[in-house]
Amino acid sequence: MSRFESAVYVTRKTTFCASHRYHNPDWSDEENRRVFGACNNPYGHGHNYEVEVTVCGPIDRETGMVLNLRELDDLLEKEVVSRFDHRYINKEVSEFETTIPTTENIALHIWDRLEPALRRRRSRLHRVRLYESADFYVEYLGEGTVE
Amino acid sequence: MSRFESAVYVTRKTTFCASHRYHNPDWSDEENRRVFGACNNPYGHGHNYEVEVTVCGPIDRETGMVLNLRELDDLLEKEVVSRFDHRYINKEVSEFETTIPTTENIALHIWDRLEPALRRRRSRLHRVRLYESADFYVEYLGEGTVE
Amino acid sequence: MSRFESAVYVTRKTTFCASHRYHNPDWSDEENRRVFGACNNPYGHGHNYEVEVTVCGPIDRETGMVLNLRELDDLLEKEVVSRFDHRYINKEVSEFETTIPTTENIALHIWDRLEPALRRRRSRLHRVRLYESADFYVEYLGEGTVE
Amino acid sequence: MSRFESAVYVTRKTTFCASHRYHNPDWSDEENRRVFGACNNPYGHGHNYEVEVTVCGPIDRETGMVLNLRELDDLLEKEVVSRFDHRYINKEVSEFETTIPTTENIALHIWDRLEPALRRRRSRLHRVRLYESADFYVEYLGEGTVE
Amino acid sequence: MSRFESAVYVTRKTTFCASHRYHNPDWSDEENRRVFGACNNPYGHGHNYEVEVTVCGPIDRETGMVLNLRELDDLLEKEVVSRFDHRYINKEVSEFETTIPTTENIALHIWDRLEPALRRRRSRLHRVRLYESADFYVEYLGEGTVE
Amino acid sequence: MSRFESAVYVTRKTTFCASHRYHNPDWSDEENRRVFGACNNPYGHGHNYEVEVTVCGPIDRETGMVLNLRELDDLLEKEVVSRFDHRYINKEVSEFETTIPTTENIALHIWDRLEPALRRRRSRLHRVRLYESADFYVEYLGEGTVE
Repeated sequence: MSRFESAVYVTRKTTFCASHRYHNPDWSDEENRRVFGACNNPYGHGHNYEVEVTVCGPIDRETGMVLNLRELDDLLEKEVVSRFDHRYINKEVSEFETTIPTTENIALHIWDRLEPALRRRRSRLHRVRLYESADFYVEYLGEGTVE
Repeated sequence: MSRFESAVYVTRKTTFCASHRYHNPDWSDEENRRVFGACNNPYGHGHNYEVEVTVCGPIDRETGMVLNLRELDDLLEKEVVSRFDHRYINKEVSEFETTIPTTENIALHIWDRLEPALRRRRSRLHRVRLYESADFYVEYLGEGTVE
Repeated sequence: MSRFESAVYVTRKTTFCASHRYHNPDWSDEENRRVFGACNNPYGHGHNYEVEVTVCGPIDRETGMVLNLRELDDLLEKEVVSRFDHRYINKEVSEFETTIPTTENIALHIWDRLEPALRRRRSRLHRVRLYESADFYVEYLGEGTVE
Repeated sequence: MSRFESAVYVTRKTTFCASHRYHNPDWSDEENRRVFGACNNPYGHGHNYEVEVTVCGPIDRETGMVLNLRELDDLLEKEVVSRFDHRYINKEVSEFETTIPTTENIALHIWDRLEPALRRRRSRLHRVRLYESADFYVEYLGEGTVE
Repeated sequence: MSRFESAVYVTRKTTFCASHRYHNPDWSDEENRRVFGACNNPYGHGHNYEVEVTVCGPIDRETGMVLNLRELDDLLEKEVVSRFDHRYINKEVSEFETTIPTTENIALHIWDRLEPALRRRRSRLHRVRLYESADFYVEYLGEGTVE
Repeated sequence: MSRFESAVYVTRKTTFCASHRYHNPDWSDEENRRVFGACNNPYGHGHNYEVEVTVCGPIDRETGMVLNLRELDDLLEKEVVSRFDHRYINKEVSEFETTIPTTENIALHIWDRLEPALRRRRSRLHRVRLYESADFYVEYLGEGTVE
């Protein structure tokens, strides 16, 4: 039935608490301070991050679901929460030893961890939305999304 | 004026409290339990659902609105709230006697109730978003949305 | 130091999804319908309940905490979440086979499960707050609180 | 690196408190009352508006950011908050002396203030979302968005 | 049973949208501006107010409730929402023609409307909490509460 | 008028982003890990803290307010936000070089900063409530509150 060909978007939210610091080693301390302000403070600071992961696909006729939430929860635990929660991102998530852990870069990184894992499960990652706080969030929908 | 040709998206949120159970009668009890977990518990369980309905269209020059919210409220009351609120969906919303009342299927069903009713009022339904809880929601934007 | 004699209040929030029905078997169907309205619908309906449990005590000098949150989390899982989550309260939580599962009665019941367990851990339960929805909640602070 | 060509969406939320009244001077009082209801009350009423502004672009390699949030905050303060906050929109925001200050029209107006200012900073405004209350919001994505 | 002698606190939340202005007619314009800032703007401004009303009492054995929520809802509609919603408080709620409509004074006024009405229904009003915004609220618990 | 003798409670919310680590130097690493779990991770982690400060007093007849919010905002900025925001509490807030920065201890510390400052302004601090996350918060109401 054609109806089941239509895509449905399923979004799961999880959370992690982490700390980070913005610092570009190619710049002087003054330049870092000027650009990043308090985000450049030497010891870092932290946030309760919230991640919303959206998966897209047809509804499975037998289960009535796009994908089993428990599978998605396991994946989020493994690829996101266990790696970031209660961590100082700059020192404890290896990719961010040389990349500034801005909300933008963390969102891209989460996409890169989840997208191939979901593709192997025949699911399609549609969007990663990462809240740093209630009044700032970043979304990434994959390459080729420049309209 | 060309400005008024541009589309504006208007979203209204409402809520209903209902209970449901996930069970596929073609499967054994063990299979149902394995796939659906606690959602297969024999007596069902419930949620405070939140529905966000997005309507799209040009702004009416005389009213400054895309559509009159009171009309949309009446429609949501008639097609959604009065049918689902304080109900056990599996037994009291007839379409779900044979369809598993997952969040995905309920979102599609709400689309099917609202879309023709809005079209008759010359409005265009853009999206139905259905929250089962604060950390899980489903969106449907109509057929042909597989990108 | 007298400072550490002062009480600090620590509140933990958790959630469970359940369904219930209001029905007094001593009344006629008409009376039940008149008093309880849609809450008397024969198949029940459900909510995403939120429980806030407040424990009161001095700060432990060695840990800087009133009590270890992981202990409280274990207790909430055992006494509240595992008993109510994904359940039809009237049939699956034995105390409510004969007690109407109103928000008031559930809050009292949660108090009765948590209070002695916390006392055995030398902690003092101060308040149970139970949200049935974002716009309705009940609080119980133990006997003798009529002011 | 092609990766940095991909667009990332950055959303900032701010808030303002204002009052407004819906009234079409071309209509009789009865017609105004019939269409706008209590929104036509002669002295107006108010809301805590929330604005979410989404900017789209590649991540700057040196900063790890799409744009510096402090620049965006300054722009929102200048173009939105300082003009609307603690104002009666009909009388104190000149564009609305002759335009009905519906949520739709205010969202368009905010777009018109922000879009050229962001373009001058080589940023691209993607969307303005304006909440009038927790259960009603309007989105505008620019001209040519009728699908 | 002594258990039912214990008090339970039941809280209902409702909302209204209104506008107001702070102005003390005994002061000069300069003094008003100095003390009240933007709240003194001549045309007023507005908020989405949220009111939480807490009623206290024993649980009724027959209903399992402290009071019937529908009665409380009717009372809130009559005494609060219908009087404040979509109003300019200074001109349309007569008590505030001579009293400055601060959040404090509105909370007291709501207490004065609800307390005798609840007492006539043998219920006891415990607290009125009034949110002007997400980051500011006022509570009143009746006279004699100075500790 | 006796009415104005009654106390009204005024609550202001603010926020700060900070990081911390739980570690008791008198214990072995194993003991620290056993008691504090991930909170003992060597580089710390962070949160978006929310502080609600409640001040209590009679309503000033001339202003209709318990205290001027701008004064309270200045005080919160000076005593709380400027000291904690974007900081690693263990190293950058001197009191926590030797005190474990648990939510309990931070709440007490905020009380100790605000209480005398408010008393000098003839206001009375009633409660400090500190949210570490949406599901955990601590309240302190001053010494002598053990009931």
